[in-house]
Amino acid sequence: MKLIRFGAPGAERPGVELESGVRKDCSQHFADWNRDFFNADGLARLAQLVEKRADELPNVASTTRLAAPVARPGKVMCIGLNYSDHAAESGMPIPTEPILFLKGSNTVVGPYDDILIPRNSQKTDWEVELGVVIGSDARYLASEEEAERHIAGYCISHDVSEREFQLERGGQWTKGKSCDTFNPLGPYLVTRDAVKAPGSLQMTLSVNAERMQNGSTSTMIFSPTYIVHYLSQFMTLEAGDVITTGTPPGVGLGQKPARYLRAGDVVELAIEGLGAQRQTCRNA
Amino acid sequence: MKLIRFGAPGAERPGVELESGVRKDCSQHFADWNRDFFNADGLARLAQLVEKRADELPNVASTTRLAAPVARPGKVMCIGLNYSDHAAESGMPIPTEPILFLKGSNTVVGPYDDILIPRNSQKTDWEVELGVVIGSDARYLASEEEAERHIAGYCISHDVSEREFQLERGGQWTKGKSCDTFNPLGPYLVTRDAVKAPGSLQMTLSVNAERMQNGSTSTMIFSPTYIVHYLSQFMTLEAGDVITTGTPPGVGLGQKPARYLRAGDVVELAIEGLGAQRQTCRNA
Repeated sequence: MKLIRFGAPGAERPGVELESGVRKDCSQHFADWNRDFFNADGLARLAQLVEKRADELPNVASTTRLAAPVARPGKVMCIGLNYSDHAAESGMPIPTEPILFLKGSNTVVGPYDDILIPRNSQKTDWEVELGVVIGSDARYLASEEEAERHIAGYCISHDVSEREFQLERGGQWTKGKSCDTFNPLGPYLVTRDAVKAPGSLQMTLSVNAERMQNGSTSTMIFSPTYIVHYLSQFMTLEAGDVITTGTPPGVGLGQKPARYLRAGDVVELAIEGLGAQRQTCRNA
Repeated sequence: MKLIRFGAPGAERPGVELESGVRKDCSQHFADWNRDFFNADGLARLAQLVEKRADELPNVASTTRLAAPVARPGKVMCIGLNYSDHAAESGMPIPTEPILFLKGSNTVVGPYDDILIPRNSQKTDWEVELGVVIGSDARYLASEEEAERHIAGYCISHDVSEREFQLERGGQWTKGKSCDTFNPLGPYLVTRDAVKAPGSLQMTLSVNAERMQNGSTSTMIFSPTYIVHYLSQFMTLEAGDVITTGTPPGVGLGQKPARYLRAGDVVELAIEGLGAQRQTCRNA
């Protein structure tokens, strides 16, 4: 099942994309794809609705803006240097346990929204990532098997990053990760049952049609279930929270010479089975 | 004016504490002290209500739990090493610009709620801090004077920190800052007009009645208005967001030998004009 949200910023409504590609409006049945929805076993109720009554749901016009596929998350948790080949490219050692930082959750935007290059930015960079959406509140999980049951599904997460703000302005990464529009999500959340092999998904990113990243979740150091189990030892993961799980090689910082985004650049991202994003950059 | 929130976790209601110390329930007039309230000039409307009709407001029983004085913030932004004497104590250089990291906003709890010592924690530490609440959305502010107008007010913020998780588990601080219950806020939000000298407030913290921290906001490196202006250059600060502005010397990590919180310990915090907090520690 593919969950979407659509409509103008601040007035998004929940919907689904059917296997036919037709989009349906679910707002008469559900308020939003948010913490309450996921915690109240909403995915099971939604599956019933789609199975039995999809024809009755209003269509969503294909011109309607797609928003992030989940309501603003409580937390956006980011795993750093989680691909062995990207760690090497960054000149960083391979981590022995997941590196965690947070993005402000107000960074989340739709998959086709513009990326705003911050004022005074010279080093705005791209990162295609596998996003994991938490399906029910989780704390002190006992095993990876238990962790898997707390995953609602997967989506593309673009972890846009300003490298000077991140690395040259005080030591903690958040400053370069939390600028407005720095987390396009979507186009849809694919539920866990529909992603057969999250550990071997091809993922690509192009800038102005030039392929920059071309990787696979198979070179991840820590898997989604490992990460969910691990993070639950530190804090409660809430339903609807997003974990963005690190990027494969090919970021701008890793080019020789380094290369960054400028107004007018077009970034396209794709992950196998999770659809595609496309953003145009403009100045904030 | 002093804003409070009260009631059981998940069912908090907004109120005020009058100069007499009497607490009044404002829930018939306002939904909550949240982003919508602050952005819609709610503080001015609340001041009118309190001035003209305080007698009509229901009293809040003195036994009622006090919650954090603002609804769950969109972001909890934390400034690291912002006291010259604490930076020295930590063996860290004095920062040349604010160090930013985020706490998960689900860490926010009431001022008298228990602190949960995480499982496998040996180094849970205390930090009394001046909390700043944003009063209206702010981006690319032009000056500190403009920044001041975006401050709703101040409150005590307890930036509880697990030092091993923060410093010995991967390099980014978030992991040791975002454990459940790690941000008691309150007892009230004192509006900006009622805090005459935020740059010279005494602040103290005791553990089991032994004074551990005894500082003043006068040794802050970066002032609240400096910080608000600075952060707005990186990201939108949203009304109701909280900035916790760093701690003076005397944290457990700085004791010789280092000393940390254990189940049963009682922590008491106070900041001049902003009231007092008291938490009992127990094991998660």
